Amino acid sequence: MVWDAWGVPSGHAPLPDKIRTLLTQVFGVSGEPVARRDEGGVPLSESALKSEHAAALAAVVGVGNLSTAHGDRLRHAGGKSTPDLLRRRADGVQAAPDAVLFPADHDEVAAVLAYCSAHRIAVVPFGGGTSVVGGLDPIRDGFDAVITLDLCRLDTLTEVDPVSGTATLGAGVTGPQAERLLAEHGLSLGHFPQSFEFATIGGFAATRSSGQASAGYGRFDDMIQRLRVATPAGSLDLGRGPASAAGPDLRELFAGSEGVFGVVTAVTLRVHPVPETVARQAWSFPDFATGAAALRTVVQAGAAPTVLRLSDEVETGMNLARSHDVGGRPVGGCLAVTTFEGTAAHVAARHAEASALLAAAGGTDLGAGPADDWEHGRFAAPYLRDALLDTGILCETLETATSWSNLSTLKAAVTTALVDALTGQGTPALVMCHISHTYPAGASLYFTVVAKQLDDPIAQWQVAKRAAGDAIVASGGTITHHHAVGADHRPWMTDEVGELGVRVLRAVKQAVDPAGILNPGKLVP
Amino acid sequence: MVWDAWGVPSGHAPLPDKIRTLLTQVFGVSGEPVARRDEGGVPLSESALKSEHAAALAAVVGVGNLSTAHGDRLRHAGGKSTPDLLRRRADGVQAAPDAVLFPADHDEVAAVLAYCSAHRIAVVPFGGGTSVVGGLDPIRDGFDAVITLDLCRLDTLTEVDPVSGTATLGAGVTGPQAERLLAEHGLSLGHFPQSFEFATIGGFAATRSSGQASAGYGRFDDMIQRLRVATPAGSLDLGRGPASAAGPDLRELFAGSEGVFGVVTAVTLRVHPVPETVARQAWSFPDFATGAAALRTVVQAGAAPTVLRLSDEVETGMNLARSHDVGGRPVGGCLAVTTFEGTAAHVAARHAEASALLAAAGGTDLGAGPADDWEHGRFAAPYLRDALLDTGILCETLETATSWSNLSTLKAAVTTALVDALTGQGTPALVMCHISHTYPAGASLYFTVVAKQLDDPIAQWQVAKRAAGDAIVASGGTITHHHAVGADHRPWMTDEVGELGVRVLRAVKQAVDPAGILNPGKLVP
Repeated sequence: MVWDAWGVPSGHAPLPDKIRTLLTQVFGVSGEPVARRDEGGVPLSESALKSEHAAALAAVVGVGNLSTAHGDRLRHAGGKSTPDLLRRRADGVQAAPDAVLFPADHDEVAAVLAYCSAHRIAVVPFGGGTSVVGGLDPIRDGFDAVITLDLCRLDTLTEVDPVSGTATLGAGVTGPQAERLLAEHGLSLGHFPQSFEFATIGGFAATRSSGQASAGYGRFDDMIQRLRVATPAGSLDLGRGPASAAGPDLRELFAGSEGVFGVVTAVTLRVHPVPETVARQAWSFPDFATGAAALRTVVQAGAAPTVLRLSDEVETGMNLARSHDVGGRPVGGCLAVTTFEGTAAHVAARHAEASALLAAAGGTDLGAGPADDWEHGRFAAPYLRDALLDTGILCETLETATSWSNLSTLKAAVTTALVDALTGQGTPALVMCHISHTYPAGASLYFTVVAKQLDDPIAQWQVAKRAAGDAIVASGGTITHHHAVGADHRPWMTDEVGELGVRVLRAVKQAVDPAGILNPGKLVP
Repeated sequence: MVWDAWGVPSGHAPLPDKIRTLLTQVFGVSGEPVARRDEGGVPLSESALKSEHAAALAAVVGVGNLSTAHGDRLRHAGGKSTPDLLRRRADGVQAAPDAVLFPADHDEVAAVLAYCSAHRIAVVPFGGGTSVVGGLDPIRDGFDAVITLDLCRLDTLTEVDPVSGTATLGAGVTGPQAERLLAEHGLSLGHFPQSFEFATIGGFAATRSSGQASAGYGRFDDMIQRLRVATPAGSLDLGRGPASAAGPDLRELFAGSEGVFGVVTAVTLRVHPVPETVARQAWSFPDFATGAAALRTVVQAGAAPTVLRLSDEVETGMNLARSHDVGGRPVGGCLAVTTFEGTAAHVAARHAEASALLAAAGGTDLGAGPADDWEHGRFAAPYLRDALLDTGILCETLETATSWSNLSTLKAAVTTALVDALTGQGTPALVMCHISHTYPAGASLYFTVVAKQLDDPIAQWQVAKRAAGDAIVASGGTITHHHAVGADHRPWMTDEVGELGVRVLRAVKQAVDPAGILNPGKLVP
């Protein structure tokens, strides 16, 4: 990953002319990119890891697998939220972990945790580094030092059960690696969040990730069959069957635990054969409410496609779901995308059932084209954000979920909160929204916000983020549907689970991490 | 509920002649029922609840809602496992709660818990009284007294959201009550475990119940959107959306918590329109392995019917899935039952897809008849068990789940363990099995065991149960797929979740129930 932006260098490109023109018209910016800092010249906080601890930890993971190099520390300084990237691009000292460790396996992770627990060293688990909620911030929180545990060497497929449709993958396996490893067995995971190209199996589990094909293959937490977790108090191997009534489901306590309760080292997941057939079809709806009702009908009938999403009027108008055409000729209505995967018979049956429902609910068939466009550009949005940030535009996303009956209310409340918070600071704001994850009882809402950067764009965004979070809580949404809590959503965790819920989380934390070294400052208030 | 047997008096009938003949041939028993004890003459343990506590608790729930009457205490003395019923029918003093309380609402439950926590009184939450794992045993565990909290007055539908397809039901609502209340809104829950006629919403949640239509509507834990729980440390209201990434899913910590972490007082559940169409079809497979592979293919293709079950050769031969014909003319092969529910279009599409897969996997179409028979008698088996127990036959069930690839191994290991344990005690045993819950990654196995009762049938069964439980654990199954842990499966909980998992459960318990009054002796080792 690039240290101060998303992804790989080859993914970055200047803004197309039509977007620059649009920015000039709407926000009055030139559209000219500013120069970025040179990596080597970025000052870091001094490493606070004592040499005796460095030596002891190096003895666990091997000397070559403990790094205090400038580049390693800088690349593990945090995640990829807009505030993260703005902070990276700003002058001044970057907070960075005191060292980065690259353990080889579960036992090395467990040994590192035991050592750090005994010696007051905070530990930040690190997968693909794609957190957008401050989940990777190297917060010291009173500890003597903070190290980052990069799990990239836990990168193997250790077990495949093609009959049961399950596979065990190491925590450090990235999305593309998982698909490559599974494809050798004719299998696929089907987990395609926007972070797919860089994020890892361990990170997906620890943050309850949800991919673009969640309507068909489920959220990542739904896919988890077994979880292996290392904690300072010992190891856990959770999950003894496809389902169980043997008490509380402890997998669900460690899924979403964001490195605060332990380090996920391996996950056994539900996988499926590489789809025999893929069919795509796009639809247009006259407005968001009609489109949302149509999606609801399909999901509640048990006829969900593999991918099912709906852009609102503003997002459709901006062509945000068609990356090569963003900012191009405005389009009316609301664009929906459907994809169907599986055996030929399954795709045919499901496609026919879903299409009939969408048409009956007011959808106009747009053919495969716009759905193919979406598929083609579906991992590109974070690169576009980087180009916008470079030209003085603030661009960030946030998301929530609620019941179908509350969806319009929540969408309006969050949109109003964002627009008011930004215009109140003196800049117009563009707020776009889409549904990308659907359930029988409700759906997610994903907001993209664009405004002109003010003098302190981090503070500017924080005002908007606070307003949006408060609106979500007040309107009955969940504070996060698939981005996790990290440091950024922690202020709302008590609203989410209540005072007693927080005490339960603290009790679990105390049982597995009595010294409190695991990912301080995240998740648990 | 009858105090010493399953269900209502009208459900009980003498054994049909063909079964009596069979029992005489196989087990050498006469088939003549023995007389049962008269309820009034059953001696109970003396009530240990001090009068000052009784008065204080009566002040909370109202004088008429605290009972120390013989009949109330006897009817709350435990659940409905075979050992429970044998114990009920044996001579001697029955262990019973010191009082039975009938609170009206959440606040009264919370107030009772606060009082009992402050005064060392153990509390057993009680729904329909259908536990088959000792989950309701009035275990004192060193406390001064033990009361049972019967939730039958929390029996209302408090909220319906037809758009989102959700409804909030009180903990004491029974299965039939839930269907009646929802039917007034054109809705259905679709949760039909064998205990359906008596068990309650709170009990379903607290035990992770799974119904016969789980392939279509999911397990009960899948249906839970929101959970309201009273604990001695305060109340919880969990679940803020159809899905969330806001940390661990605490609903999954209280689902399956069996009254040990708190008392579930209300549950918001996913519901669906009363099905427009229902189609049933039965199939025959040459053997269990072929049938299981066929079911697997259907589920993994995403073409699951609403009901999907498969009896093994022995169960099919005994006609156990066709209640009016049990013990009748033996049938070869393995019977599978499918039911499809939903809109006409959905049923047609799903039925066609699933049938094609079942036929291609070696199934022979038997038409609707045997599936209708199964549907008709699907809640009758516990009554049959009572008639068998009365004639000197031991009859009990147990269940587990595992991956598809491990299914045959686990089935053989449990069958062998049961047969060996019973024949080792000098009586032949008949072990039947079916799959009644399927998942993409695996399935449940439900065993029915029949043998001749020895002098001490409880001890006789305990030997068999221990052997089966050990075999399940050794063969990688879960110790319970839908019956829960209670007192009976507690010896295997450490195998299920590990030492550290048990410590996590204890930490949660300590946070919500510091005095340890909630359902002592259950779930947590």
